[in-house]
Order: sequence, then C-alpha cells, then structure tokens
Amino acid sequence: MSNKHNSREAIVDTASRLFFTQGYHATGLNQIIKDSDSPKGSLYYYFPHGKEELVLTCINRTSERVAQKLRHYMENSETPAQAVQDFILSMAKEAEDSSFEGLVPFSFWVAVETSCVSDQLRTACQCVFKDWQDVIAQRLVADGMKEETAEGKATVIVSLFEGALLLALTCRNVQPLVAAAQSIPAILA
Amino acid sequence: MSNKHNSREAIVDTASRLFFTQGYHATGLNQIIKDSDSPKGSLYYYFPHGKEELVLTCINRTSERVAQKLRHYMENSETPAQAVQDFILSMAKEAEDSSFEGLVPFSFWVAVETSCVSDQLRTACQCVFKDWQDVIAQRLVADGMKEETAEGKATVIVSLFEGALLLALTCRNVQPLVAAAQSIPAILA
Repeated sequence: MSNKHNSREAIVDTASRLFFTQGYHATGLNQIIKDSDSPKGSLYYYFPHGKEELVLTCINRTSERVAQKLRHYMENSETPAQAVQDFILSMAKEAEDSSFEGLVPFSFWVAVETSCVSDQLRTACQCVFKDWQDVIAQRLVADGMKEETAEGKATVIVSLFEGALLLALTCRNVQPLVAAAQSIPAILA
Repeated sequence: MSNKHNSREAIVDTASRLFFTQGYHATGLNQIIKDSDSPKGSLYYYFPHGKEELVLTCINRTSERVAQKLRHYMENSETPAQAVQDFILSMAKEAEDSSFEGLVPFSFWVAVETSCVSDQLRTACQCVFKDWQDVIAQRLVADGMKEETAEGKATVIVSLFEGALLLALTCRNVQPLVAAAQSIPAILA
C-alpha cells in the first residue's frame, strides 16, 4: 500500500470516526487534519470540494460495510428470518463491545443531520437505505416471496433495525435490538 | 395569557423549530433570539442555564405532544393494532403535510445528536422513549397480554416507528410509514 493511499485512508478513517461520534456540524476540517496526522494540503488534495465531499465518501464506505455484512448473513443462513436475526444480534454485540459510544457503523444520524445540508447528501442516504433493502428483498424473492411484498417487508426490517439501534444507543442497552430480532419471524411470516 | 408567558412560549416555539430543522449544534442562541423577536435578556432570564436547558424544554414538550396523540389513539380504537396503525398513519399525514421538511414532532435526531452533548440530555431522550412505550404497553396489558411480552412488543413498535420516520424523511416519501403500519398486526399477534 502506497503512502498516498495511506494518507487518504487515514483522513477517511478519522473523518468517519469524528462524524459518527460528534456529528457533521460539530466536526471541523482542522480537527480532521490534526487527528489524522495529515499534512494540511492533503485533505484539500484528495477532497477538493471539502467537507461535503468527504462526508459523502464516509457515508458510502460505511454503507458498503453494512451491506457486505448483511449479504454475508443473507447468503449463509438457512432462512431469511434467521439471517436478519443474526445480522441484528451481531450489531447488538458490536454496539455493546463499543460501550454504545456511537462507533457502530450505521447511518441514521447521517440521514437526519445531513438531509438539511444538501440534496446530494440526502440522496446519498436514500441510496444507502435502498441498497440494504435490496439485499434483503432479493433473498426473500429467492425464497419465493412476491416482489412487491418482499420490498415492503424489507423496508419494515431496515426501519426497525435503524430505530432499534437508535433506542439501544440512547438507552445504552441492547434490549431494543434483542426485541427487534425476536419480532422478525412474525414480520416475515 | 400574559406577555411574560407569550415571550417564553415564543422562545420555545422558535427554538423547537430550529433545533428540529437545523440540528442542535447548528442552532445558535442568537438566531433563536432574533427569530423569536425576543429581547436578548429574556432568553437568559427564562433559561439561565442556556442552550442545554432550552433544548431539554423542547424535548419534553415535543415528547408530551407525541405521548398525548398516542394516548388518544390508544383510548379510542377498538384494538391496540388499530390504534398503533392509526397513530403511524397520522404521523405519515403530518410528514406529508409539512413536505417532509423536518417539522414533524419527533425526537430521533435529538436522541442521536444530543446523546453526545451530555448525560442529562441522553437520559431525557431515554425517558421520552420509555413514556411512549408505557402508553402502548398499558393498552396491551389491558387487553390481556402478559406484562413482559407487552413491554417487548411496545419497544419494537417505538423502534419501528422511529426508524420508519427516519426513512420517510430521508426518502421524502410516506411508503416506509405505510409499510410499518401494515406490519403492526403481525407484530402484535
């Protein structure tokens, strides 16, 4: 891996951590430069359009990681219900392991806080949710569910997962995620 | 209504609108003073502890309005499932009427963005979710459900509602809320 690649990665890593823990508005470019130990010019070299371009990169990378994880469970579980339950419980473990410090890779704050910033960011968040829903819906259809029904159920699952994560982080307790996982078989029945 | 009361109300109204549309960090006290047409001293008179005390008041007021609405449906619908569906669909209508501009009274961004600010605000958001869950669980228990089961299902409903609102606002489309409402009978079965 070249230094050039390392420097860009360090900036994205640091920016993701700061955006996810402090929020978009509260995170300044100077703090990202300082915390990532990057030369001042390199942030503007890799992200000439500044903060908005940088957060877009963070959103897409985080989204892809979640989608990969979701695909992994979807491809390796006996039933779609088991796959979704395993995915939600793995996120519960991750939240607990990080002491609910907000370092869990999820995008809900992004959707909320950045929807006000620009339509480009709002659209990016919309695509994130759509990608996750597609992963779930594809498995449901492969198992014989009608496409329209599968899309509706996939939306419900993504909504429930995002909401349960929000409650878990607010309450610093995995119970909302565990309850969500338990309700999956009924939702998919 | 006295002027004194009006002035405090104007500050809380304006602050709620700004916090809910722009976020906590992006909203400054000067903008609240300017937009509410209040004398500079009155914000500090009514909220001597500043921004955090003010946002706490906004959270509690918004939460109580949602709880009242939820109680209304819980007390006036034939079944708990019907009550939750009516509540979710009324929120969908409210979101659509406000053109998804974030003026819907809900607290998810508060929970996320302010959890990082202080433990007092995080605890306030935790109480909000707990209050809503209690309203739902009480009706479920009144209808014969075991208390532990009712609490779990109430948590799932609040999670699903918050997540579906998040998706609806991000996608500027009520479909996630409609899909959530449709899944309620299966969740409560």
